[in-house]
Amino acid sequence: MSQFNDNKAGMNLWLTEYSNDNFGISLKVKNILFSKRSDYQQIDIVETDGYGRVLLNDGILMISERDEFIYHEMMAHVPLFLHNTPKRILVVGGGDGGTVREVLKHPEVELCYLVEIDEVVVEGCKEFIPLTASSLDDKRVKVIMEDAVKFISETGDKFDVIMVDSTDPVGPGAPLFGESFYSDVFKALNDGGIVVSQAESPFIYSRMQKKLFDILKSIFPYAGIYNFVNMTYPGGLWSFSIASKDKDFNPLKINRNKYEKLGLKLKYYNDAVHVSAFSIPEFQKEFLYGDVGER
Amino acid sequence: MSQFNDNKAGMNLWLTEYSNDNFGISLKVKNILFSKRSDYQQIDIVETDGYGRVLLNDGILMISERDEFIYHEMMAHVPLFLHNTPKRILVVGGGDGGTVREVLKHPEVELCYLVEIDEVVVEGCKEFIPLTASSLDDKRVKVIMEDAVKFISETGDKFDVIMVDSTDPVGPGAPLFGESFYSDVFKALNDGGIVVSQAESPFIYSRMQKKLFDILKSIFPYAGIYNFVNMTYPGGLWSFSIASKDKDFNPLKINRNKYEKLGLKLKYYNDAVHVSAFSIPEFQKEFLYGDVGER
Repeated sequence: MSQFNDNKAGMNLWLTEYSNDNFGISLKVKNILFSKRSDYQQIDIVETDGYGRVLLNDGILMISERDEFIYHEMMAHVPLFLHNTPKRILVVGGGDGGTVREVLKHPEVELCYLVEIDEVVVEGCKEFIPLTASSLDDKRVKVIMEDAVKFISETGDKFDVIMVDSTDPVGPGAPLFGESFYSDVFKALNDGGIVVSQAESPFIYSRMQKKLFDILKSIFPYAGIYNFVNMTYPGGLWSFSIASKDKDFNPLKINRNKYEKLGLKLKYYNDAVHVSAFSIPEFQKEFLYGDVGER
Repeated sequence: MSQFNDNKAGMNLWLTEYSNDNFGISLKVKNILFSKRSDYQQIDIVETDGYGRVLLNDGILMISERDEFIYHEMMAHVPLFLHNTPKRILVVGGGDGGTVREVLKHPEVELCYLVEIDEVVVEGCKEFIPLTASSLDDKRVKVIMEDAVKFISETGDKFDVIMVDSTDPVGPGAPLFGESFYSDVFKALNDGGIVVSQAESPFIYSRMQKKLFDILKSIFPYAGIYNFVNMTYPGGLWSFSIASKDKDFNPLKINRNKYEKLGLKLKYYNDAVHVSAFSIPEFQKEFLYGDVGER
């Protein structure tokens, strides 16, 4: 916990995240609520003016209370409305609990593992961001503090949907963008299983996105990319990858019966947004599918 | 022209645009190319590191060379692929020329008026941003330096498509968000005419968007909202409004014959992106269509 936790005097305090040394996003900060160096990274939680509480790993914005619903809804509900019987879910990373919160809105989910390498993320979020982290207390959830790369290579358990809710491919998140990890993910999925992953920005991290997409295509019979828009990630446009063990997988074919019966009241996701998320702008199609080399 | 036009020594110069006093977007600046106070506003053009040249009106980012294609393609091609015979086009504002550039890609366009209140915008862009402004030299284009509110209330001319390529609803752009302006737009449109307008961000200017949408609904038999994503506008997610004099107007019904025959090579727009742009996230549907009052 930091001592700099009282900004009532109106100090003009700004937090800035820089990308590629030429772009910055700044949020006005009221207080620092939590600051702790874990074995893996620096974890900070700050109270902002207008964006609620914000979690940062090594100074990179992970979630803000104002717009976290977009990322978490789009990560969870897209695969869960495509899989007909998602009973066993594995969330990799995602120690803030937001993805798990959305997963638990599906009553057919019997068990949701969260494998998070950094217990300090869970500790900080449980204390200061209950909006997302309170989901981790649900009885269907099992939180495992372990390196997910190791967990998934050793587990005998199988899952219906795996959600790779990772940080950027630097620091502890780096192996989660690798080929051997996704070979293990393939083995840990039941027949018809689906994996979705945080896939970076098509604007500013297109090389990362292309690399992840190519790895998935080399391992899974189906791989695709879908987009969402985030207020607080640089570039706005952001992506998830999705891959399935089913070669006839159609990512636009929502289980309508389940969708209508469940009648979730969400803030971003709906059936039309789901389908539209797979409409990829031309420049993104070009680097994903075109023969244009690395960029 | 500013004297501060040589940053070769590597000065660490950042340009920041603040929104609502709690959010900032920063670009790294190499040079200031153009700085001039017009009768209406301060116009600056800067050379950035990674985002190309950037136009600012009163310090607000209007276009960057890196991502201007998104805004301009989505403003022009959505209505032009919905209207079967768009011969006469009026662009209101848009003195940078980017919207006109996209309009001219449609060979059935016979005439494109650009009515821009501020000649300094055109002057600066013609000199420093030919990527967009060179379109203004085309023989089908007629540039009129006049207040568009006055022009449209007095003109006897009629148009097939009107594009309101405005700044934010402050300063010279403010009347372009008003009811009397859109009554005049209605009168200046031929039967079956379409108007599209820059409609602000559903995240951070939802009240403006709702107000514009309600004005359009009160005047036109059809009014809708469609979204795009911009790298350099705060919040990422941004919108256009679209309204038609045709009560049976369907904004998803692209003229496929024209679309396929023309075979434009664009960077953002395609037929799937067009349709998907009308899939509105839940929170936006709620404030646009829900009975939730002002927010």
